[in-house]
Amino acid sequence: MNEKQNVEHLNFMRIAIEQAKKSRSEGGIPIGSVLVRDGMIVAKGHNKRVQEKNPILHGEMDCLNNAGRVGSYKECTIYSTLMPCYMCGGTIVQFNIPKVIVGENVTFEGSKEFMESHGVEVINMQLPECIAMMQEFIQKNPKLWFEDIGDL
Amino acid sequence: MNEKQNVEHLNFMRIAIEQAKKSRSEGGIPIGSVLVRDGMIVAKGHNKRVQEKNPILHGEMDCLNNAGRVGSYKECTIYSTLMPCYMCGGTIVQFNIPKVIVGENVTFEGSKEFMESHGVEVINMQLPECIAMMQEFIQKNPKLWFEDIGDL
Repeated sequence: MNEKQNVEHLNFMRIAIEQAKKSRSEGGIPIGSVLVRDGMIVAKGHNKRVQEKNPILHGEMDCLNNAGRVGSYKECTIYSTLMPCYMCGGTIVQFNIPKVIVGENVTFEGSKEFMESHGVEVINMQLPECIAMMQEFIQKNPKLWFEDIGDL
Repeated sequence: MNEKQNVEHLNFMRIAIEQAKKSRSEGGIPIGSVLVRDGMIVAKGHNKRVQEKNPILHGEMDCLNNAGRVGSYKECTIYSTLMPCYMCGGTIVQFNIPKVIVGENVTFEGSKEFMESHGVEVINMQLPECIAMMQEFIQKNPKLWFEDIGDL
């Protein structure tokens, strides 16, 4: 990854982090996502389990929901503040989204190997800000967190 | 599978097929789903890509959305008229839903092996009615079908 790409990734990840913080300010789970095509934002989203009482609206799913029917995803990149789980990773594989930029995978292992085994390029930025945001959330809301990842 | 279990599976699959037909009557994709716990229906759903312009609402996802925050899925079984794709199969794996009853996998291979490799029990009823419903739909709407499975 060259310097220009790194700056671009950081800029879009910044917007995903803003989405995560928006969710947190609403009493929700702080995970945000951005879908990008040709250097332009197609849609943004964040986890809405709490806000909409909806278990399928993880950050990436809400983002893809907000994007609507965009046709082919072959030129798209999806950003997420946290490594996608199997629901979100499965969606990325099924929708043929070729590239995922991830904030971190320290607090949640997610489905990196599964996505990569299906040809998805996964770039993990391992950002201290993303790690700290999730660590703080999980420490304060362990039950909600385990509910969100289906681990009850 | 004994006779009593088979009758139960057919009864719930009948309701999933009704959901699929409801979607078809609305101009949508004919795939339906039912979530069951302790022999009782928790929620029903069907594909809403066309109806709500929403790419993530496959039948199973709509059903789980309608079910809301149900806590643990460990005692649940999900029915689908078609073998779940990677989005829906990934969700089943992530949510720890232990059992999936499927209408058919002739028209779409789906993610059977992936789900089974994560310990999900997958029972395929291979019902001629489900096969015929999808064959007719795909023949009449190939572009919409390929859009729905991310194959554009």
